[in-house]
Amino acid sequence: MSDTLQATAAVLIIGNEILSGKTQDANLRFLGTELAKLGIKLAEARVVRDEHDAIARHLNELRSTYGYVFTTGGIGPTHDDITAEAVAQAFGAELVVDEEAARRLQHHGRTLNEARLKMARIPAGASLVDNPVSHAPGFHIGNVFVFAGIPSVAAAMFEVAARHLPKGDAIHSASLDVFARESDIAAPLAGIAAAHPKVEIGSYPFSRNGRFGANLVVRGTDPELVHRVAAEIRSALAGLDTRAPD
Amino acid sequence: MSDTLQATAAVLIIGNEILSGKTQDANLRFLGTELAKLGIKLAEARVVRDEHDAIARHLNELRSTYGYVFTTGGIGPTHDDITAEAVAQAFGAELVVDEEAARRLQHHGRTLNEARLKMARIPAGASLVDNPVSHAPGFHIGNVFVFAGIPSVAAAMFEVAARHLPKGDAIHSASLDVFARESDIAAPLAGIAAAHPKVEIGSYPFSRNGRFGANLVVRGTDPELVHRVAAEIRSALAGLDTRAPD
Repeated sequence: MSDTLQATAAVLIIGNEILSGKTQDANLRFLGTELAKLGIKLAEARVVRDEHDAIARHLNELRSTYGYVFTTGGIGPTHDDITAEAVAQAFGAELVVDEEAARRLQHHGRTLNEARLKMARIPAGASLVDNPVSHAPGFHIGNVFVFAGIPSVAAAMFEVAARHLPKGDAIHSASLDVFARESDIAAPLAGIAAAHPKVEIGSYPFSRNGRFGANLVVRGTDPELVHRVAAEIRSALAGLDTRAPD
Repeated sequence: MSDTLQATAAVLIIGNEILSGKTQDANLRFLGTELAKLGIKLAEARVVRDEHDAIARHLNELRSTYGYVFTTGGIGPTHDDITAEAVAQAFGAELVVDEEAARRLQHHGRTLNEARLKMARIPAGASLVDNPVSHAPGFHIGNVFVFAGIPSVAAAMFEVAARHLPKGDAIHSASLDVFARESDIAAPLAGIAAAHPKVEIGSYPFSRNGRFGANLVVRGTDPELVHRVAAEIRSALAGLDTRAPD
């Protein structure tokens, strides 16, 4: 991942329910996986509360630092859904009713009351991101994509948005499990990592049926190199119990 | 949560595996839940890669902004475990071998090779946080607590560290499910939220067996007020199908 031309991204997760422990976030893992397939490096993520100033401040920091920002959460119709307003604030844009969004929200069989109309308000200059699941759209403005928090909806919106993203070299990975303590494999692993700066080697300890081990993962954009380094690790650990990961 | 004297905290999750989608983080939800029990407001969380400068920079931002910072991940023996070094860098402290940590790592039956000794290196001035699960300790320095990434170990370390944390007013909650679209309950809900600034009211939409609904949660430090507001919501939604949450 030392390619400085690789596109970068950040994720901004919005919602008190994630920080209070009420809800387990599932969007970060999904977005990380999908961005890696597109060759986009997810550089950081932040989780913030439903507070205007905090959302706007973090969004401005992230959008000026990374190529793309994906936000999840806070675009529904209730009083605690303030993402669109906060994004507008961050961009210094007005919040306006998008006629097409209003049409879609009305088309799907419901009276367009004040709360539903709220979901049609997006910052001036933003474009809609289709929501094939439940119709209330997301939007994108500048390098920022604004998605719903419900995982099925966020995933569907990402699929739509991905058409607008550059396709870099996908990130490939190879992994193996070794039944040994990390401290007994750290030295050879560090040597191999130092010799191959173009791949990333991770070691993730586990305990399985009372046996200690580590899942070793090689990641990089060159699949041939990734597999060669994985083979090198396997040879270096010959004599230990290694196997394909679970 | 309008009490300005309430203690605040942030979580810093360290590890490429969380951002690549390889691993589902479980520590944020645990820490959010436990901090709420102690009356400490988890204000934000960040997920960063295994990069010295990024870890140090985010840690310095967070520790100067919030009362407490909890980090998870990156304190093992392999080359990608760089949290202790990065924390030392953030504090401008040297990394030194802690004799007690070295003793514990040796005591538990293993040769103290270079990799295991690495786990005994903590920033000068830090104190150990016991690890009742797998012995390699965490540490705390200033207002920063440094925990392992493995959820069972992070949880055990938090339990130890919690003894050093102030106990504020625990945050209580009451919730109900309503089978209605959020847009049909947004108006009464917003009125009740505006009338009770001392509680936080969240609305979390769901679709269950094809029926739309929302889980409504009232949170606050005054349990009597929390239950009174929940009852007020229930009355306001009389006529809709409301029930105790799943």
